[in-house]
Amino acid sequence: MERKTLTTAAGPYIAVFDSGVGGLTVLAELRKQYPNNSFLYLGDTARVPYGTKSPVMVTRYALEAAWFLSRYPLECFVIACNTVSAVALPALRAAHPDIPILEVVTPGALSAVEATQNKQILVLGTEGTIASGAYQKAIHALDPEIEVYGVACPLFVPLAEEGIVSGPIVKMTVQMYLEPFLKKEIDTIVLGCTHYPLLRNAIQEAVGENVKVVDSVAPLTKRLRSHLIHTIEGRPRLRIFVTDHSDRFMRIGRRFLDGNLDEPTQIDLEEMFYENQRLINEPPSLSV
Amino acid sequence: MERKTLTTAAGPYIAVFDSGVGGLTVLAELRKQYPNNSFLYLGDTARVPYGTKSPVMVTRYALEAAWFLSRYPLECFVIACNTVSAVALPALRAAHPDIPILEVVTPGALSAVEATQNKQILVLGTEGTIASGAYQKAIHALDPEIEVYGVACPLFVPLAEEGIVSGPIVKMTVQMYLEPFLKKEIDTIVLGCTHYPLLRNAIQEAVGENVKVVDSVAPLTKRLRSHLIHTIEGRPRLRIFVTDHSDRFMRIGRRFLDGNLDEPTQIDLEEMFYENQRLINEPPSLSV
Repeated sequence: MERKTLTTAAGPYIAVFDSGVGGLTVLAELRKQYPNNSFLYLGDTARVPYGTKSPVMVTRYALEAAWFLSRYPLECFVIACNTVSAVALPALRAAHPDIPILEVVTPGALSAVEATQNKQILVLGTEGTIASGAYQKAIHALDPEIEVYGVACPLFVPLAEEGIVSGPIVKMTVQMYLEPFLKKEIDTIVLGCTHYPLLRNAIQEAVGENVKVVDSVAPLTKRLRSHLIHTIEGRPRLRIFVTDHSDRFMRIGRRFLDGNLDEPTQIDLEEMFYENQRLINEPPSLSV
Repeated sequence: MERKTLTTAAGPYIAVFDSGVGGLTVLAELRKQYPNNSFLYLGDTARVPYGTKSPVMVTRYALEAAWFLSRYPLECFVIACNTVSAVALPALRAAHPDIPILEVVTPGALSAVEATQNKQILVLGTEGTIASGAYQKAIHALDPEIEVYGVACPLFVPLAEEGIVSGPIVKMTVQMYLEPFLKKEIDTIVLGCTHYPLLRNAIQEAVGENVKVVDSVAPLTKRLRSHLIHTIEGRPRLRIFVTDHSDRFMRIGRRFLDGNLDEPTQIDLEEMFYENQRLINEPPSLSV
């Protein structure tokens, strides 16, 4: 695919991509660790959520997003969405061999493998992530002896987005998903979705203090360091793009980003992507 | 917009459009009442849900869907989605002046107005539907003296789609949304979302037997009759289109459609729509 890079003073950027607002929790942590870097964030709010959609559709959306972000000078591309990491990574790497792509499944798996003592791990994720078996593969690549269980928790995302992160509804929902696993000897739980850390307390309470609840953020942050080879001249910048600009994004985003959220820029991924594809396939004839 | 009608033996069709799988509850009821008619159903499963998206985006998606369905010979076009009915109706009518368009807000309002004795009505809906004020307008058009309250219940759709329609989680979620209204003298509740009838029992239980819980299906079904002017020759047909074909659609759809759900056809609304738009704006030159 043709790559046309936009020049910019604040780059190269670390591009963070998510299906919606959830990846802002990852962005917040990365900015804390790398305050001198410039960031782009793209949330595909017009088509969120990805977790209940097919791998083909998630891959297509991710390719459109990566194509948009790749027109900026990038230090690297961070997939902050577990569902995209789980199903679209090979396609993204094939389409953008020149951009380092970091994702969240491998770091999450690493956290879990480092935490487990008895080699019994439970992965919580969206339907798409759990069905892909991506965590299982990533964990087994690190230690094939580990027993990996997985459970899709489709109500966790709406609860987190509504800000309902404690109280009896959350407690019973957590109980409903985890109940079948409470009698197993699991000692580590991976939060395999960027929304789930918001429910960490409720999950920790349900499983007790002897079970470690881990996520991908710390290893991802560490891994990012080796890709940051440029020094930004001038003031580091954050630009936020969304595919649907709604009050909802601002309201939830502020909560996820500790109160600070600049007005995002709305873009039309579909139209831009198809127009670009068309120009590649049918270059406009030059009038002489 | 140019209208190119596909010829078909089973038509003209009643086209039912929804953001996803929820409208199948409406389709099921319409087919029961009109077993000799042919139906098209389009669920925009690639971009569902609409209830949390902006009016601009919902309108755009609805226009794409209506454009696709309008290429078939249609008896009428039924918007089975409250959010679309609430925000996109004027745009749909303007784009398709030649197709009778039925929606669900006016019938829902009618049900409520007929049911209420004390003129105190509570509307339950998605964020988009409630924010639009569409039910309030529709109810006041019928009786300006009625007091209309509204509450967005964003957790109801995920609960219904997960099949969690009874038990303590549903009970407490219903309680959470309705609590602020229980002390008011409301005697009628409108289920302003096609998913909500699945939670009817839990809602009825929370408010007690003295409150009537109504929806749009009966008046919609009745209203449809006047638009059915053709007799179908041959066997009536049902064709289901989705924008993302997933196991999830089949699993949930079967539950909504009483067990019977044929394999849907996946279509690419975005690409078809843009290609069509482009051909209108830049007609291909004829090679002589």
